Amino acid sequence: MPVPEPARGLRVALLGCGVVGTEVARMLLEQGTDLAARAGAPLELAGIAVRDASRPRDAAIPPALLTEDAESLVDGADIVVEVMGGTEPARALLLRAIEGGAAVVTANKALLAADGPTLYKAADSAGVDIYYEAAVAGAIPIVRPVRESLAGDHVRRVLGIVNGTTNYVLDQMATTGLDLDEAVKQAQDLGYAEADPTADVEGYDAAAKAAILASLAFHTRVSADDVAREGITGVTSADVAWAARTGHAVKLLAIAEQTGEGVSVRVHPALVPLEHPLAGVKGAFNAIFVEADAAGPLMFYGQGAGGRPTASAVLGDVVSAARHRVLGGKGPQESIYAARPLLPADAAVTRYQVRLLVADLPGVLAQVAGVVGDHGVSIDTVRQTGPSEGTAELLLTTHAAREASLAATIAAVRTLEPVREITSVLRVEG
Amino acid sequence: MPVPEPARGLRVALLGCGVVGTEVARMLLEQGTDLAARAGAPLELAGIAVRDASRPRDAAIPPALLTEDAESLVDGADIVVEVMGGTEPARALLLRAIEGGAAVVTANKALLAADGPTLYKAADSAGVDIYYEAAVAGAIPIVRPVRESLAGDHVRRVLGIVNGTTNYVLDQMATTGLDLDEAVKQAQDLGYAEADPTADVEGYDAAAKAAILASLAFHTRVSADDVAREGITGVTSADVAWAARTGHAVKLLAIAEQTGEGVSVRVHPALVPLEHPLAGVKGAFNAIFVEADAAGPLMFYGQGAGGRPTASAVLGDVVSAARHRVLGGKGPQESIYAARPLLPADAAVTRYQVRLLVADLPGVLAQVAGVVGDHGVSIDTVRQTGPSEGTAELLLTTHAAREASLAATIAAVRTLEPVREITSVLRVEG
Repeated sequence: MPVPEPARGLRVALLGCGVVGTEVARMLLEQGTDLAARAGAPLELAGIAVRDASRPRDAAIPPALLTEDAESLVDGADIVVEVMGGTEPARALLLRAIEGGAAVVTANKALLAADGPTLYKAADSAGVDIYYEAAVAGAIPIVRPVRESLAGDHVRRVLGIVNGTTNYVLDQMATTGLDLDEAVKQAQDLGYAEADPTADVEGYDAAAKAAILASLAFHTRVSADDVAREGITGVTSADVAWAARTGHAVKLLAIAEQTGEGVSVRVHPALVPLEHPLAGVKGAFNAIFVEADAAGPLMFYGQGAGGRPTASAVLGDVVSAARHRVLGGKGPQESIYAARPLLPADAAVTRYQVRLLVADLPGVLAQVAGVVGDHGVSIDTVRQTGPSEGTAELLLTTHAAREASLAATIAAVRTLEPVREITSVLRVEG
Repeated sequence: MPVPEPARGLRVALLGCGVVGTEVARMLLEQGTDLAARAGAPLELAGIAVRDASRPRDAAIPPALLTEDAESLVDGADIVVEVMGGTEPARALLLRAIEGGAAVVTANKALLAADGPTLYKAADSAGVDIYYEAAVAGAIPIVRPVRESLAGDHVRRVLGIVNGTTNYVLDQMATTGLDLDEAVKQAQDLGYAEADPTADVEGYDAAAKAAILASLAFHTRVSADDVAREGITGVTSADVAWAARTGHAVKLLAIAEQTGEGVSVRVHPALVPLEHPLAGVKGAFNAIFVEADAAGPLMFYGQGAGGRPTASAVLGDVVSAARHRVLGGKGPQESIYAARPLLPADAAVTRYQVRLLVADLPGVLAQVAGVVGDHGVSIDTVRQTGPSEGTAELLLTTHAAREASLAATIAAVRTLEPVREITSVLRVEG
């Protein structure tokens, strides 16, 4: 058991201040106390390397932290966080950090897909850690599950929806009948797609992620150039409509699989049976489906892009790197966290859907609604069926309210003269 | 950076040899070389503690490894794996292991739900690691993602389908119209439900997992007794049918959420909107939906029970514990793994769905099928529409074949005289 070092502050160097970098800086600055508790030491944002320190930034970024001298910033850091993107100077700076003994965290999929193994080897040789949870599928934890949770198992196959733009486009084609160009235009209007959508629709972004996933799952040197790649530009609205007719959804998949002969890595549109969990991944969401020998099928779902989701993954890596530095490994179990009070069951906030049978008399609905309102509960929808033989059925859904108020409401409704029976009370969640 | 110890073998003590224990032992014995590479040291199964060593066991279990003296086995171990279940003697043995400086791995949800914090505190005090990925949701990685990947974020809410039996029962009620008793009977016949289904249908099993999830997500001492619990015995086939009519699925949810006031933990059936990812979790599968401030919604899906899936999670924990012991933290990045060859794109095995327009002449289908067969590709289904104006449309789905054969098949079909156009070629995956 390594002896923990005293909890001195750790200097974090941030390279890059774009959408992700700004969120990382904001979270580091605003959540300092929480992060220190979780990391086992204060995390000090030592500086933010940018190309042009005079450019105006988000109000959350103290101008004094900005520097154009990335190398000096790296040299004084315990943890280097790279969110600048692109191959150079990101690679040179990360290698410099590694050689200097810093732990590194990167969200740079282009760099890892081009030359990840060089960085992994350098980190191994230097005995430092490299973390890249944010580089594949944004907020979705996939690196730790594959590297650690499945370390005693054999991964056979990884199928990923790893590009939110193309998933949005294909989903729109399926649900609205738009053709590809119209759906891409809509994705651009909503900010899901770039003005030049090539990297997404031609599958380059997905191929970079496929390369990283394959390296991770099968410990094989795969670069983005090795990935057989076909984008979605050949997918027609007729393809999507036919897919639905034959019980499928069209998805752009990143596939890495291991056979007896070796590893196959490819990106292409594919028909996925509607009953497969990947078929249900809608809009701009991402999901990675993993098949392992003993674990069987697993799926990891969430937001694959965006400043805050990606920053969440980066910060998780920063805390891991800090824990490792301070405590020599895993974080503490529970004891350093502030315990939070446990609420009684009737303090929960939920919604109710209630079915009840009532006498078919004028004013019954108003009477029920009045009692519900008297308890501070508001009604979302009411649906009446019947009447048959003098009895009508009401289906009533409430807005969110405290369990205690909802339970009291039901008790009061039950005593109303025209209420014959409360057939069912179910909560609505999610 | 702690200096790695030399890679001596690590002694693993296994407590319990039921369904999960047998699979853990089998995997430790059969995958020794792989596990040693991943763990950074050989893992030696030092013994298996059982109540009755004379009882016949699976052929994979060497009788010489069985012992009834669990305490001595624990005392000589580097890593203690507890899969015996129940509160005692599991707790006493784990505390003994922790005090003796061993890392511990447990799949025991009943023990953690009853008294997890005692174990976590003991491990913190002794400076050893406790791992319990297998105790919540079987093979699904949830402990690492919440503890580590989300360590820089704030979890707001956890919604889990954590009991496969009740999910199967509710799913059957929805898809076949069975009532509860019939669906439970069917689950029993299939081995999904115990002869006495109380622990599942009354929500006790889900409540134990809810307690562990709440402790994990919110660092709050929650025991199974603190969880507000309602099972599925009150759910009628009418409820399930009404749910569908209003766009919902009925699911038994384990809910842990944090509000400004504190933490609420409960288990009850709930209506989940059909467009919510949890509504698509079918059969005996489990899924855990996590909402975090920055990451947004995440979902983790897989098999929540069963010997092999649970053993996969246990082995992942064993490898993590070993890495920590040998290497002082994370495992090596890539270099110790054997690199596997990368296959060319046309070696991939896939299925094709092909749409083509053909002249409406007798024998065309046979001609197309003949060419496909000549390339060693077999046809799964053919569907013909039309003819209109002398042209028919064929929709042809193949069985799995090599990409190279499929591509050659398409090229040959394209040259057939009656083939007017190949409208679409899409791969089928998943």
